[in-house]
Amino acid sequence: MSARAQAAAAPAVAEAPGRTHATEKARIAVLGASGYTGEEVVRLLALHPVFDVTALTGETQAGKAFSDVFPHLVTATNVPRLVKIADVDWSGVDAAFCCLPHATTQEILASLPRKVRVVDLSADFRLRNVDTYAEWYGGTHRAPELQKEAVYGITELHREEVRSARLVANPGCYPTSVQLPLVPLLQAGMISTEDIIIDAKSGVSGAGRSAKQNLLYTEIAEGINCYGVGSHRHMPEIEQGLSEAAGADVRVSFTPHLMPMSRGMQSTIYVRLDGGASVDDLRSGRYAEEPFVHVMNAGGVPHTRYVRGTNYNFISVFPDRLPGRAIIISVIDNLVKGASGQAIQNLNVMLGVPETTGLLQQALFP
Amino acid sequence: MSARAQAAAAPAVAEAPGRTHATEKARIAVLGASGYTGEEVVRLLALHPVFDVTALTGETQAGKAFSDVFPHLVTATNVPRLVKIADVDWSGVDAAFCCLPHATTQEILASLPRKVRVVDLSADFRLRNVDTYAEWYGGTHRAPELQKEAVYGITELHREEVRSARLVANPGCYPTSVQLPLVPLLQAGMISTEDIIIDAKSGVSGAGRSAKQNLLYTEIAEGINCYGVGSHRHMPEIEQGLSEAAGADVRVSFTPHLMPMSRGMQSTIYVRLDGGASVDDLRSGRYAEEPFVHVMNAGGVPHTRYVRGTNYNFISVFPDRLPGRAIIISVIDNLVKGASGQAIQNLNVMLGVPETTGLLQQALFP
Amino acid sequence: MSARAQAAAAPAVAEAPGRTHATEKARIAVLGASGYTGEEVVRLLALHPVFDVTALTGETQAGKAFSDVFPHLVTATNVPRLVKIADVDWSGVDAAFCCLPHATTQEILASLPRKVRVVDLSADFRLRNVDTYAEWYGGTHRAPELQKEAVYGITELHREEVRSARLVANPGCYPTSVQLPLVPLLQAGMISTEDIIIDAKSGVSGAGRSAKQNLLYTEIAEGINCYGVGSHRHMPEIEQGLSEAAGADVRVSFTPHLMPMSRGMQSTIYVRLDGGASVDDLRSGRYAEEPFVHVMNAGGVPHTRYVRGTNYNFISVFPDRLPGRAIIISVIDNLVKGASGQAIQNLNVMLGVPETTGLLQQALFP
Amino acid sequence: MSARAQAAAAPAVAEAPGRTHATEKARIAVLGASGYTGEEVVRLLALHPVFDVTALTGETQAGKAFSDVFPHLVTATNVPRLVKIADVDWSGVDAAFCCLPHATTQEILASLPRKVRVVDLSADFRLRNVDTYAEWYGGTHRAPELQKEAVYGITELHREEVRSARLVANPGCYPTSVQLPLVPLLQAGMISTEDIIIDAKSGVSGAGRSAKQNLLYTEIAEGINCYGVGSHRHMPEIEQGLSEAAGADVRVSFTPHLMPMSRGMQSTIYVRLDGGASVDDLRSGRYAEEPFVHVMNAGGVPHTRYVRGTNYNFISVFPDRLPGRAIIISVIDNLVKGASGQAIQNLNVMLGVPETTGLLQQALFP
Repeated sequence: MSARAQAAAAPAVAEAPGRTHATEKARIAVLGASGYTGEEVVRLLALHPVFDVTALTGETQAGKAFSDVFPHLVTATNVPRLVKIADVDWSGVDAAFCCLPHATTQEILASLPRKVRVVDLSADFRLRNVDTYAEWYGGTHRAPELQKEAVYGITELHREEVRSARLVANPGCYPTSVQLPLVPLLQAGMISTEDIIIDAKSGVSGAGRSAKQNLLYTEIAEGINCYGVGSHRHMPEIEQGLSEAAGADVRVSFTPHLMPMSRGMQSTIYVRLDGGASVDDLRSGRYAEEPFVHVMNAGGVPHTRYVRGTNYNFISVFPDRLPGRAIIISVIDNLVKGASGQAIQNLNVMLGVPETTGLLQQALFP
Repeated sequence: MSARAQAAAAPAVAEAPGRTHATEKARIAVLGASGYTGEEVVRLLALHPVFDVTALTGETQAGKAFSDVFPHLVTATNVPRLVKIADVDWSGVDAAFCCLPHATTQEILASLPRKVRVVDLSADFRLRNVDTYAEWYGGTHRAPELQKEAVYGITELHREEVRSARLVANPGCYPTSVQLPLVPLLQAGMISTEDIIIDAKSGVSGAGRSAKQNLLYTEIAEGINCYGVGSHRHMPEIEQGLSEAAGADVRVSFTPHLMPMSRGMQSTIYVRLDGGASVDDLRSGRYAEEPFVHVMNAGGVPHTRYVRGTNYNFISVFPDRLPGRAIIISVIDNLVKGASGQAIQNLNVMLGVPETTGLLQQALFP
Repeated sequence: MSARAQAAAAPAVAEAPGRTHATEKARIAVLGASGYTGEEVVRLLALHPVFDVTALTGETQAGKAFSDVFPHLVTATNVPRLVKIADVDWSGVDAAFCCLPHATTQEILASLPRKVRVVDLSADFRLRNVDTYAEWYGGTHRAPELQKEAVYGITELHREEVRSARLVANPGCYPTSVQLPLVPLLQAGMISTEDIIIDAKSGVSGAGRSAKQNLLYTEIAEGINCYGVGSHRHMPEIEQGLSEAAGADVRVSFTPHLMPMSRGMQSTIYVRLDGGASVDDLRSGRYAEEPFVHVMNAGGVPHTRYVRGTNYNFISVFPDRLPGRAIIISVIDNLVKGASGQAIQNLNVMLGVPETTGLLQQALFP
Repeated sequence: MSARAQAAAAPAVAEAPGRTHATEKARIAVLGASGYTGEEVVRLLALHPVFDVTALTGETQAGKAFSDVFPHLVTATNVPRLVKIADVDWSGVDAAFCCLPHATTQEILASLPRKVRVVDLSADFRLRNVDTYAEWYGGTHRAPELQKEAVYGITELHREEVRSARLVANPGCYPTSVQLPLVPLLQAGMISTEDIIIDAKSGVSGAGRSAKQNLLYTEIAEGINCYGVGSHRHMPEIEQGLSEAAGADVRVSFTPHLMPMSRGMQSTIYVRLDGGASVDDLRSGRYAEEPFVHVMNAGGVPHTRYVRGTNYNFISVFPDRLPGRAIIISVIDNLVKGASGQAIQNLNVMLGVPETTGLLQQALFP
């Protein structure tokens, strides 16, 4: 048997991350690599056969080895040292993941060479209406021209636009978990645009790596609390996507909760059936061929643990005890499908490589 | 100063739990003491100055010291060994907490001497309609006469009936967390009976101490999942209480979630305003004088950690982004106000001792 | 029965915390009340019948209600607002718990009226040798006279000195967990002073409430790591206590680990038998009458959960597979017996009230 | 750039797990696939380009889809249904991972066709001396002939024997975490064989997926406890490996602790320097070229989180405060390098494919 396996193993050499630096690979920059989403891009790219990390930036950590910031990634070979954005040599870069904080990316992205494809993980280019942006993010948009060009990219819903985009606005984690299940239903008129109630639960990594008292282990473990009730910045992004799908203004009730888990997100969504649709109808269809969206059979209960570390979205639909209503549950890993994984999925599409490349990890369970 | 404090300390001797066995104290039996609610009764009674544990039962553990089952309670002095229920000498018992599994308590309670006051923590006497009981708990009620006599006891809502009751049906944890905030609002007509949506999150201790694969640490940590959607047994109990308050049939949407925390429960409740009430109106009134219910000021966010280990219920009311709606958040410790604490509170009332006796612990935070 | 219990309940009124402000009670100030140990003092005093909190200080939070800093303590009635230390009226204060950071307490304590009894929870007065203090804490001691007066107070080991002390240096958490089991054995010559190896595991609350990246939930959950190997500041404190007990210089190997738990501390201590002692000998004796120290029978395994929220110390002794050696396991709650609980125990002794007053809570389990 | 990346992506097709069922791939059976180690093999093989899962067994779950047992693995395409071992068609199997409970594998493995290469994850073939096996595992060995043939396989230490083995006894998790750092040091005479003290901390998944009360979330969360002091079954396995390395009998002190984490293992090892070696000497050498063993620079602190979900072993060496001693810290993921990952690493070697194939995942952090 050994001979058979050995022969098959030959092409597998490409799988060894970073060992060879083939010139045919796409050369990737990660801007803002010292936070969790930047780190997650690096984690996932370690198994990506055709994307190579050629630049990592971190303004305050510039000069350090990446493993000084994330000691576990000493095992990710061929990862370059951190530099300042101003010091990146863009001539050797084909595409960039931008993992910078909100409001800091507009001018930076406007200054990049046009040949560089960009997936921006911040919120800066997600809202089409720059006034809405100003209202929720508290400042005038400084790259409105670029905003017009940006493509909002939940890959499964906007694949064609993503394919030809130069700049993709990678969606927020809550908006991804909500739009994936709801957009097809609103498009098909199967649920009402009224009274959509979203009770969302998120892991703590969504809040980033900055030191804040309310994110200390001692303040988070063994409890739950809501936050940002009626004022969370992902609300306009959710409403923008749902309104577009419904062809009408949609307002939602959205209450996020902070949970004692590092990763994972569940949106429990309470909807009203419409257009004569049954609960079973809500399960049928759209995602049958999608590699990353799994609609469970009747009665299936999605756990956030089922998607930990993966790019999958599990969805389940339950009849509500209240007649004419249904309960939709959608789970993702907030750092993968809700951020860095979807970003890679988008760049795969943009660069014409198979969409699942580097993203077929199974859940880390338990 | 020492002299001043020493003098004041004299009456404090009574506070030392179980050290003296004054004949004036009420003598308490705990039936089914080998589970978490039984243990919790013992924990709380350790600081109760006038209730003494005189009998502990556990059918499979009979003969053992209580500290063989709960090694930490070796520190609870004067706690008797476990015996079988059949071996309890009821002549020396004034009152009993019954912490047995559902469906096992009916015949046992029917057989007790009538002089023994009972707080039953099972579900067996909570549902007034024995047919509803049979439907949800899967068996004919075997003590329908006793059912008629039982008083359902959320202390704040049924204090007068509890005072003269011989048998109190101690409410379930979810029903307590939901009825405390909603009953006054339904009674006042301030919220609609339609479209009440309850998204509840519970700690794992609510599921008990029996070995089950789905409750293993490895299956629970770092994730969330719903369970019993549309079929949880606490649903009819909730609806019974809300219907009574509203004077009309109320059906609710109720989705419980299992959280990685041992204790704590949050119900996030989505309601529609009614009768011209404003969001601020929902905060006013009823509980101002209650020692265990705290309605937070506008904007206050209740964490389950705020009530860990305590008999308190924190409530907060938020305006919903959807016009005409409000979001009510209610947190309790499922083992205290949701079970053993409220049971003691009820027995305090039944035996005429100050209601807060033994129950003024502050939250264990962090 | 009701009559019997009612009669017994009368003296229980004193148990209701803070409801009455009897002039006979000792009036307590808590300096530095916005951290975890200050908060823990307030939690415990809520059940203390003869100590009343009359002043709380917090330099940066002065002016706020205590419940603005710890929202759950809105239930602790009669707790005063936070003030600056300079604004405390010392005429109405009998005793103070000083919960300030290390190196900030020396001058403050030197300035207090001599009639105020003080339990200092910082490290500032623990090391008898001010040069050792300077070496490990990085600064010249600014109250060397006061240092001479200070009594180091592990209550069980120094009860008599504590009784007459004006200033007690409350021990560190690690030193408490190590000295309680080892001091009697060293005094009796039953273990060798050579090769004492302490592998300690601590909950995160020991690191305080300040926002630090390495204490974020996401950095702590689901993992373990050591820290301060060979350089932890509790080392000289441990060695001071053990040397005194042995009557000879003792050096220890001490490796602390940070665990994903908010409270709790276990020291696993590897020792060599001496003086002909057997493993069973190590279990006998000294603590039989102590209310807060529980030496388990052979084979008993102490969990940190057994002492969560309590002032207890559980100790167990195992034979080692290596001949002539034993393994001693000692668990405490780092915030209670390791800090605030022992502080109250000490003040109880200093003010002549029964030592267990206010400290007989049973463990919060689960 | 797209063209460049597209070209490079072509060989990447092989990376898509299970999508193609190339006849050249090695065909793998997983026996006992319904436990955590079996599931972990399937997780890792999803990214293995030349191993295909062709049979999964589970005696009590036979007939079910694998995703009925592990719902998240519905995303692992081409995974077969569970069957009974007796129903496996061995003609189509090249190699097997045996994940059955201890004491059940001896007769099963003895009955397999000799052409099938086997990696056994149970303890049944780890101990060379069948009497030692009988003593610690409580039963006569039923396949002593096979035992003689078995190769004990910590890959880095026994690579050559593994290469030609038909049956590899995959090491236990604790023994892996201890032998990797210690064996080279004992071989080089740099540490003493006396007084090796191992204080180990393990995640809960090491205890398996069977429902046991002591493994419930409520019994494990927020605490630590030791277990099996002086009697853990991994002790003789550790001593066998260390004795062989030292060329002399080695006895160790070994105390395992159960931690509130699902995965991860840290062994904190206290040793005495020997042969004139310095602390720095302990860091040099042997593993410089090993892809999965990372010896950290002086001062580096290995967290178990750094290796979560990976096949890596991080090692660090600290000077002890006690002269002449050192502290060695070794971390692994108990389910990967401590079980299923090392099993795949071994089979890679046995079948002549590059050793890191399918195993280069980076840690899931946070």
